[in-house]
Amino acid sequence: MILALAGGVGGARLAQGLAAVLAPQQLTVAVNVGDDFEHLGLYIAPDLDTVMYTLAGVHNPQTGWGRADETWQFMDTLARLGGETWFRLGDRDLAVHVERTHRLRSGAALSAITTDLCTRFAIAHAVVPATDDRLRTLVHTDAGTLAFQDYFVRQRCEPVLRSVEFDGANTARASAPLAALLAGDAIEGVVLCPSNPWLSIAPVLAIPALAQWLDARRVPVVAVSPIVAGAAVKGPAGKIMRELGLPVEVEAIVAHYGARVDGWVIDQRDARYAATIEGDGHPVAVVDTLMSSPHRAAALAQAALQLLQSLRR
Amino acid sequence: MILALAGGVGGARLAQGLAAVLAPQQLTVAVNVGDDFEHLGLYIAPDLDTVMYTLAGVHNPQTGWGRADETWQFMDTLARLGGETWFRLGDRDLAVHVERTHRLRSGAALSAITTDLCTRFAIAHAVVPATDDRLRTLVHTDAGTLAFQDYFVRQRCEPVLRSVEFDGANTARASAPLAALLAGDAIEGVVLCPSNPWLSIAPVLAIPALAQWLDARRVPVVAVSPIVAGAAVKGPAGKIMRELGLPVEVEAIVAHYGARVDGWVIDQRDARYAATIEGDGHPVAVVDTLMSSPHRAAALAQAALQLLQSLRR
Repeated sequence: MILALAGGVGGARLAQGLAAVLAPQQLTVAVNVGDDFEHLGLYIAPDLDTVMYTLAGVHNPQTGWGRADETWQFMDTLARLGGETWFRLGDRDLAVHVERTHRLRSGAALSAITTDLCTRFAIAHAVVPATDDRLRTLVHTDAGTLAFQDYFVRQRCEPVLRSVEFDGANTARASAPLAALLAGDAIEGVVLCPSNPWLSIAPVLAIPALAQWLDARRVPVVAVSPIVAGAAVKGPAGKIMRELGLPVEVEAIVAHYGARVDGWVIDQRDARYAATIEGDGHPVAVVDTLMSSPHRAAALAQAALQLLQSLRR
Repeated sequence: MILALAGGVGGARLAQGLAAVLAPQQLTVAVNVGDDFEHLGLYIAPDLDTVMYTLAGVHNPQTGWGRADETWQFMDTLARLGGETWFRLGDRDLAVHVERTHRLRSGAALSAITTDLCTRFAIAHAVVPATDDRLRTLVHTDAGTLAFQDYFVRQRCEPVLRSVEFDGANTARASAPLAALLAGDAIEGVVLCPSNPWLSIAPVLAIPALAQWLDARRVPVVAVSPIVAGAAVKGPAGKIMRELGLPVEVEAIVAHYGARVDGWVIDQRDARYAATIEGDGHPVAVVDTLMSSPHRAAALAQAALQLLQSLRR
């Protein structure tokens, strides 16, 4: 069993690649919930949805969120009624939010709901939220402290980031299926997907049970760099790194994860960093990391799995 | 100012007719909320919506509920996710439910929300819920006690009705704008719309403040019969009347409302009842009551208003 830690788009694409090369019982994707929020009275889990929609093949590859072939009658009407429209909810997408919110209010755990929704979407591999507890990413910026979606969507990451906080992380437990997995010995390796290390992977690693398990691990951890040729493939990672005073280069990602990562998959455009990283004791696979198609995502997944395999010897 | 008491379709159509012949400041439509319920975590107010959509001209005249030119992406997806689909929610319709529920949870009164939504729909005349408090119609049947929409939609009125209860009615107050109207002297007459007397108008009349005001009234009340030629124009009124041991005839409606109604508008197909009703001291207008078009609804409204006017002399 491979445990993949994933955020939004980059995580979803690599999860899709992993799912293409691993049998259902060989993969669990644990997904960030720090981006989750209540909007219009609905519980919305953007990263879970991106992973779920991508694995189901109904995602919108252009936007990186929402569904392909979506319609917007709800949103257009909501705008006419004076409702909030800064967070776009498509008509099909909305069914997930309404149904999930309804089940959460009825007392079901987010992980149980996710498992059932994935079954309904005919997703064979396991997708679990990192936690069933409340964990919210807060962004401290020059415009004040902002809830994640306020920063990310409403303000388009424009405020200058100073630090990130994971409200609730200290008391958040691993979600039920993830806790069961961590308690057993099925996990043979961990993949940190190329999601934003500060905004998407950090909230997962902030869960004490997961951090402790990783620090005491007996299985290798491989990370795929989200930085290629001095820029983030998608999203605000580059902007954030500059605001944190870091070079937008693979080396800063390697330093950020430190001893939590054993081996690195970096892009061929960053091959010059391989020797330094390997010199620090971390084997490196240099490949094309741009997942511009499901085929390329599968090839990248294969590279990460081969590196994991070599680390287990 | 004319106060119209309305339920769903019949009420909405006559309200449309009244709105066509009265200036905005001359009409307030007070709408039944006994049908309201929580579904999928959303607060749904079917009669308010039918009246609102009809006055906005966006209603579906075929179904009697929902919007014309509706789409069903949400509902189709919800079905795939295993959600409840017995109560149909269109994509555009859903915007009202989500926005209203969100505002209610934020502490706004149903009447204030209704006023704002009606403004957004460019409805010039006042539409108010009968109460802002919780009032729920329960139907006691041979299949047990059922929540209204369970009886009405899910079970299609098939259980045999024994009695109807209005949970919360004893403590329900008139909604804020209705209470203000009742406390003043602007109301010159009341119209009971041809909605179901037992299921749609009774919950409005069960609100103590409204019942007391009606019983102490100094203005005439005119009712439009929902029974035409031995059958209900729409809905289960006929079936219910039979189950209550009543003849499905205008006379049973007249007996039901008793002294609360001063004058009657009955259909020309029921002209034979006019003499008896007039003999009991209630002036009668005999007209075509079938509101098969907005034009006919306006003509019926005119007849009701003329009868009201004659009673004020």
